[in-house]
Amino acid sequence: MNTKRKIIIDQDAHGPASTNLQSILMLLQAPDVEVLGICVVSGDGWCDENLAHTLRFLEIAGRTDVPVFRGAMFPLLNSQRRMLQWEGLHGQLFWKGAWTERFYDGRPRPGAHPSQPRFVPELAEGTPTTLPAPGSAAEFMVRSVRAHPGEVSIWAAGPMTNLALAARLDPEFASLAGELFFMGGSFNPVPADNHFAQEYRHNPRQEFNLRWDPEAASLVLKEDWRRITQIPVDATTRTLWSAAHQSAAAAAGMPWSDYLGRFGRELPMWDEVAAALWLDPSLATRRETMAVDVDTAFTANYGAILSWPVGRGPGLGEQAVDVVLDIDVPRMERLALELLCGR
Amino acid sequence: MNTKRKIIIDQDAHGPASTNLQSILMLLQAPDVEVLGICVVSGDGWCDENLAHTLRFLEIAGRTDVPVFRGAMFPLLNSQRRMLQWEGLHGQLFWKGAWTERFYDGRPRPGAHPSQPRFVPELAEGTPTTLPAPGSAAEFMVRSVRAHPGEVSIWAAGPMTNLALAARLDPEFASLAGELFFMGGSFNPVPADNHFAQEYRHNPRQEFNLRWDPEAASLVLKEDWRRITQIPVDATTRTLWSAAHQSAAAAAGMPWSDYLGRFGRELPMWDEVAAALWLDPSLATRRETMAVDVDTAFTANYGAILSWPVGRGPGLGEQAVDVVLDIDVPRMERLALELLCGR
Repeated sequence: MNTKRKIIIDQDAHGPASTNLQSILMLLQAPDVEVLGICVVSGDGWCDENLAHTLRFLEIAGRTDVPVFRGAMFPLLNSQRRMLQWEGLHGQLFWKGAWTERFYDGRPRPGAHPSQPRFVPELAEGTPTTLPAPGSAAEFMVRSVRAHPGEVSIWAAGPMTNLALAARLDPEFASLAGELFFMGGSFNPVPADNHFAQEYRHNPRQEFNLRWDPEAASLVLKEDWRRITQIPVDATTRTLWSAAHQSAAAAAGMPWSDYLGRFGRELPMWDEVAAALWLDPSLATRRETMAVDVDTAFTANYGAILSWPVGRGPGLGEQAVDVVLDIDVPRMERLALELLCGR
Repeated sequence: MNTKRKIIIDQDAHGPASTNLQSILMLLQAPDVEVLGICVVSGDGWCDENLAHTLRFLEIAGRTDVPVFRGAMFPLLNSQRRMLQWEGLHGQLFWKGAWTERFYDGRPRPGAHPSQPRFVPELAEGTPTTLPAPGSAAEFMVRSVRAHPGEVSIWAAGPMTNLALAARLDPEFASLAGELFFMGGSFNPVPADNHFAQEYRHNPRQEFNLRWDPEAASLVLKEDWRRITQIPVDATTRTLWSAAHQSAAAAAGMPWSDYLGRFGRELPMWDEVAAALWLDPSLATRRETMAVDVDTAFTANYGAILSWPVGRGPGLGEQAVDVVLDIDVPRMERLALELLCGR
C-alpha cells in the first residue's frame, strides 16, 4: 500500500532556480512524499515561460516522470492596464510580476515582456524537449482529488487562479482535497534588513501572490476546505538564500547542483519556507488561527489580506485559517539545504 | 513682548479626566505656552456633551480664562447608520466613539446616546455654569491664524472635522498656521499587552480619530501646512495611565487633583503623549518623514492611513509628514506627571 503523502504543486514557477523551483525540488526530494503533478500559473512571469522553465528544470533534475500542467495565463479580472491606472491613484507598486517593466528604483527589468504573454524567450538553462501533460491544470486538480478523496494536499505558492477555476469547475473540489496549504499574503511582517522588506513598509498587508489575482484568492479562501494553512511573508522575512547556501548547493554533486549554483539568487526563501513547513509543521514557532479574506474592492487596499478573530468576521464565508507567523529559521534552512543538496 | 508658544487645542475632549482632558491640562500647565482657545468636536462622545465636560473641567482647574468653542457635531459624510452597514460587510469595529452602543465584547456602553447627539446627561463632576465663547471653533481658528500668521500651532487630538471646515472657510488657513501637530492614525503598532492593542491586531492602520471622519482627515492632510507632525498610536502603545499615576495625581494638592483621582481611568496615554511631544520633541526616539493620506473609499480600508516614501506617492496632494513612531516612555511619563501634579 502506498502510504506516501500525496501533493499537487501549484506554482508560478518562474525560473531558473528561483525560490519557486527550489521549493518544487524540495518537495520532489522529500522522502514519503508523492508529487502527483505540478500545475503552472502566471505570476512572477507568464505561464508559458514558467512552464518552459519547469519542464527544463525537471529534465535537468531527472524527474520527467512528474507531469506538468499548463494553468491560467491571465488572472480572473486583473490586468496590466488596470494596475497602471491603479498606480496612478495609489502609488507605484514594488513588484508586479509578469507586468513589471521597471523595478521600483527605475531600472528596466531584463527580459520583461508584459504585453506579450505567449512569448517564451530562449532559456539560459536550455530549451526543454519534454511537453506539458494534456489538459488544464484545473482539470488535473479536480481529477486528482476525485481519485483520492481527502488525501491530496493542494500546495500553492503562486497566484490562486488555477485553484479558483478548479473550485468553479467542480463545486466539491475544495471539500474533496485533503487540505489547502499556501504561501501568500502578509499580516505584519517584521522589518528585515534586506531590500525586499521595503515592499511591506508602507503596505504591510499587500503581497504579490494574492495581489496579482485578488478575486481568485477571495473566491478560493471562501471554499469549503477541510483545513487551510497559510505561510504569509511574515514567516519568511528573516530567511535568505545566501551566496553561501548557493555554493553549498553547487558543490553537492547532484544532477541539479550545477544548475542551482549557476542560477541561484539571493532571495528570501519564500517558497522554500512553505515547502519546509508542509514537510515539517514543527518548524513553526508562532501560529495563530484567524478568519482570512482578501480585499477585492478596487481601491488602495486592493489585494490586501483582511483578517478577524475567528467568529468575529462579517460572516460572508470567510474561513478559519491556520496562519504561520514565525519559524525556526536555522532548522528550516538546514532542512532546505539537506533536500536541495541531496544529502 | 510675549514670547510664549501659541497653541490652539482641537479635541473631542470626552471627559471626565480621560486622556483627552489630561492632555489639555498638560498644555495649560506648561510654562511658556499660551493656549489661545480650546475647540471641541464630536468623536469619543458628541460635541455638546464634550463641551460641557470641558467647561466644567476648566472651572474645577480654575482656568475659565481660556475660551472654549463649539465645533462640528457631525463628521462630513460619515454616520452611525453608514458604519452599521459597513460593519455588516467588513466586521465589527472595536470602538465607534459617540456611535458606540455596545463594546466589542457585547457589554452595553454605559450612558451611550448614539442617536441623540444634542443630549447632555447630568455630569458626575457637576454642571458647568460657564458658557462656550461665541462663534464656531472653525471661525475661531481662522481668526487666530490671521491675527498671528505663522505663529499658531494647531494641536489636534480628535477627529479633524473642525480643521476641515476651517480649511474650506479660508483657503489660506493651513498656510497661515504655524504647524499642524496631531494625534491620530496608526502604521504598525507593536502589540502591547493591554486590551486596547486588540483593536490593531487585525486592522493595524485604522485608528478612531481618523476613522470617525476620514473625508475630513484626507482633506486636512492635503492642505498647504508649513509643517505637519503626527503622533500615531504606534508611539503610545507602551504607555498607560496607571492606578499609581492616578493616585500620585490625586495626592498632589492642586485644584484639579481630586478630580483626576476620582475620574481617571487606566488608559493608554494617547493624547498625553501628543501633548508631551509638542512640548518636548526630544522625547521622540524614532521618527520618520513620509507622505501620508487617509483612505476615503468606502470599503474594508475606510479611514485607514495610507503612506509612501516621500516623493513616491501618487502625487494627489499628499504632504510630507514627520511621524513619531516611538518615544522615551519613562521621560514622557515623568513630564506628564510633573505637569498634572503641578510640581
